[in-house]
Amino acid sequence: MKKLINSAESVVTDALTGMAAAHPSLRVDPENKIIFRRSAPTQGKVGLVSGGGSGHEPLHGGFVGYGMLDAACPGEVFTSPVPDQVIEATKGVDGGAGVLHIVKNYTGDVLNFEMAAELCAEEGIEVASVLVNDDVAVKDSLYTAGRRGTGATVFVEKITGALAETGASLADVAKIGEEVNARSRSFGVALSSCTVPAAGKPTFDLDDNEIELGIGIHGEPGRTRVSAAPAREVARIAMDAVHADMPLSGEVLVMVNGMGGTPLIELYVVFAEVAAYLREKGAEPVRSLVGNYVTSLDMEGFSVTVCRLTDELTRLWDAPVETPGLRWGR
Amino acid sequence: MKKLINSAESVVTDALTGMAAAHPSLRVDPENKIIFRRSAPTQGKVGLVSGGGSGHEPLHGGFVGYGMLDAACPGEVFTSPVPDQVIEATKGVDGGAGVLHIVKNYTGDVLNFEMAAELCAEEGIEVASVLVNDDVAVKDSLYTAGRRGTGATVFVEKITGALAETGASLADVAKIGEEVNARSRSFGVALSSCTVPAAGKPTFDLDDNEIELGIGIHGEPGRTRVSAAPAREVARIAMDAVHADMPLSGEVLVMVNGMGGTPLIELYVVFAEVAAYLREKGAEPVRSLVGNYVTSLDMEGFSVTVCRLTDELTRLWDAPVETPGLRWGR
Repeated sequence: MKKLINSAESVVTDALTGMAAAHPSLRVDPENKIIFRRSAPTQGKVGLVSGGGSGHEPLHGGFVGYGMLDAACPGEVFTSPVPDQVIEATKGVDGGAGVLHIVKNYTGDVLNFEMAAELCAEEGIEVASVLVNDDVAVKDSLYTAGRRGTGATVFVEKITGALAETGASLADVAKIGEEVNARSRSFGVALSSCTVPAAGKPTFDLDDNEIELGIGIHGEPGRTRVSAAPAREVARIAMDAVHADMPLSGEVLVMVNGMGGTPLIELYVVFAEVAAYLREKGAEPVRSLVGNYVTSLDMEGFSVTVCRLTDELTRLWDAPVETPGLRWGR
Repeated sequence: MKKLINSAESVVTDALTGMAAAHPSLRVDPENKIIFRRSAPTQGKVGLVSGGGSGHEPLHGGFVGYGMLDAACPGEVFTSPVPDQVIEATKGVDGGAGVLHIVKNYTGDVLNFEMAAELCAEEGIEVASVLVNDDVAVKDSLYTAGRRGTGATVFVEKITGALAETGASLADVAKIGEEVNARSRSFGVALSSCTVPAAGKPTFDLDDNEIELGIGIHGEPGRTRVSAAPAREVARIAMDAVHADMPLSGEVLVMVNGMGGTPLIELYVVFAEVAAYLREKGAEPVRSLVGNYVTSLDMEGFSVTVCRLTDELTRLWDAPVETPGLRWGR
């Protein structure tokens, strides 16, 4: 294993030090491992907190900033944040209008966010939560009961963040988060395993000519392994899985996401195929992201996430955002 | 070799199709392989054209847009664009105020841009060019005489782009581009080779516990190979090379750039070490980029680029930019 780290033990702390040095708009609490907006809390605004295991950067810390999250709680690599982290983050972003937790559906994340929410409620902070479970590949897998939460998390964080900036209520912000999740589906494909620093070796083995369909973002098993195939065929398999679960139509937001080790030129090749597929089905990709947004350390591969837009969702997607990982004009 | 492509022959064309589908702000000329701003040419504005081999995405096509390039000419993977491409791009962005070519110092690029510039001049288009040669690692290497052009290209494209938007003259835009290049230095480190699709195998071999210092962005040889070491030591070697060539002081813009296969969490670990090194030398990293900007296909590794800022350069760096690869608020 060759990695640009100082030690497996210090990788999360060292990366947080780097984030703090690179982004003056963020305030990093190194002791509790929390990334805050420097200006948090914003009085009268619903606070948004997300978190999860590290190794998925820019998710979640890279999405802290105007128009998106108020704080993120990174756990150790592929490990849930602890309830104390989430409690400190929740308190730190509470501006009196309540706090929304955005939680990917992994058992550890769900339990720890729930425990934190209960303890915050006892202290008088109103907390709601949105559970993201967009991955159509498998039901009940290594880390979770039900569907896994993957790429749609970016959409939920962006769109709830935009609504929260308008001064909307906690109930309304939570409701639109649920709506984004309900209208979104994802499917991932791995060309290689990832290597967790503390493990020091690949999480799983793939033959030289083999790919895994329906891979999870921690390298947990997908649906099946098949021989490597042209991008056109692989993209079609992924999109067929999405379409079978949620028939594609109308205007859609689509993300072709790199798993961390895949070059951008390949993601654009995949995007071309995804866009062609969508048009074939009568759907129109009117908004898009192509790049590394929800990664799995150094894994090679991609995931595709589609959200069926409404006028309101499009308007909120287009709203200004200023985070290290996603930004466009005010 | 497993890659998300349809064929080695079609990878550049397929990626261009994906870029066109993903970014309505761009107009792609598939026949000539040129990425234009949709609105090009802008009357009265100096037009900016860059280009080079593909495989370095988002460079250059991802930097086409308001505040940066007017057009980019991607060659085949790691292959210079041909003069005809550059001529068509130059004509397409000429708004009557002349056109600046931003050229990385590789022999093929230099020759083909020069030839294009001469032919455009014969047709009455005023062309100036800025040569980028920021890589301190080696002098005279596989692809070039003199120093290679790498990370500083992003700085040159951003800062000349910002000045061009103000209506500055071709001479002034070229001059500031030269200044950015003169004030910038880079050094790269590889943890793995890249694999060119048409070759189908890694460009070079590195042992399991070996890294290459001073690597070029096409996998061309660097200074030396050493045993893998903690990020702190590797970052220090890179920064020592930069500092030895250009003593670091004052306010600097610094980029820790991923080579394509390195996860963002590792780039932040490196950034923390780079920032600490700069402060130790009495320099202050006041602006930064951390991510994949000048990649080498799927290579694992990073490069660091430092530019010693002036008030004017900082102001132009901060100016609004709207491209797929770099954007912040207007």
